[in-house]
Amino acid sequence: MGVEIERKFLVLQSYQQGEPILYRQGYLSREPGRTVRVRVAGENAWITIKSSTQNFSRQEFEYPIPLPDAQELLLLCEGFIVEKYRWRVPHGKHTWEVDEFLGDNSGLIVAEIELDSEDELFELPPWIGEEVSSDMRYHNSNLSVYPFQQWED
Amino acid sequence: MGVEIERKFLVLQSYQQGEPILYRQGYLSREPGRTVRVRVAGENAWITIKSSTQNFSRQEFEYPIPLPDAQELLLLCEGFIVEKYRWRVPHGKHTWEVDEFLGDNSGLIVAEIELDSEDELFELPPWIGEEVSSDMRYHNSNLSVYPFQQWED
Repeated sequence: MGVEIERKFLVLQSYQQGEPILYRQGYLSREPGRTVRVRVAGENAWITIKSSTQNFSRQEFEYPIPLPDAQELLLLCEGFIVEKYRWRVPHGKHTWEVDEFLGDNSGLIVAEIELDSEDELFELPPWIGEEVSSDMRYHNSNLSVYPFQQWED
Repeated sequence: MGVEIERKFLVLQSYQQGEPILYRQGYLSREPGRTVRVRVAGENAWITIKSSTQNFSRQEFEYPIPLPDAQELLLLCEGFIVEKYRWRVPHGKHTWEVDEFLGDNSGLIVAEIELDSEDELFELPPWIGEEVSSDMRYHNSNLSVYPFQQWED
């Protein structure tokens, strides 16, 4: 078990530098207190459980699983499969994860940064926009059921 | 991934032969189409995903996880922790798993048999009662929220 301390921001412009990795993921549980995610990235796959978020932190438990299992598990998931390209973008002392969503979530680009403590300082790259850490609409578990392209506002 | 083909019966009398194993388990998801179970038995622990049941069969995906993780994950589960003693009881060509429940489910004893096919024949031991394979009340995921002692009938 680890603790994930993460802040999330919108991205002002499409960010493409280097080769991204395609992520496909779905949710076996999308309750706020216990999401269970199945993720496939290339030949790798994981099952990940996260607790509810307190401030910017939540518990995270992640286990690698066989790819064929993950492909079957994705069929059991609720809602849509979330697909996105992920870039890892070093900036200052940190590496940002920039996710450009596809399909029903296309048009949405977010950047996440993982921190060692809630009050850790970090540099904001010039392409970073509004912070959405506390906005549950941007949770990937939410995007699997209420995709970006269906948002009203 | 495997397919679990299982039939479940009530047990007419308390069955105690040999040393049982204490199981403690909870559910991160208890939706019929995708249960996610955390189970601890002694020093071992697993996370297990099961699909919905068709006749007597469902898909089952099981992964061992570290015991300390499982203990934390049990705290994230919905409802109660289901506790039961499990005996493995050979009879004929099969081995039955007899579960005697504790706590809010005490008084309930069920026996399960895993089969290789839906129409596989098996011997019923003399201590076996009514079949409850299709009665969802007896699913452990249900017992974690509607325990046996609270049943009306």
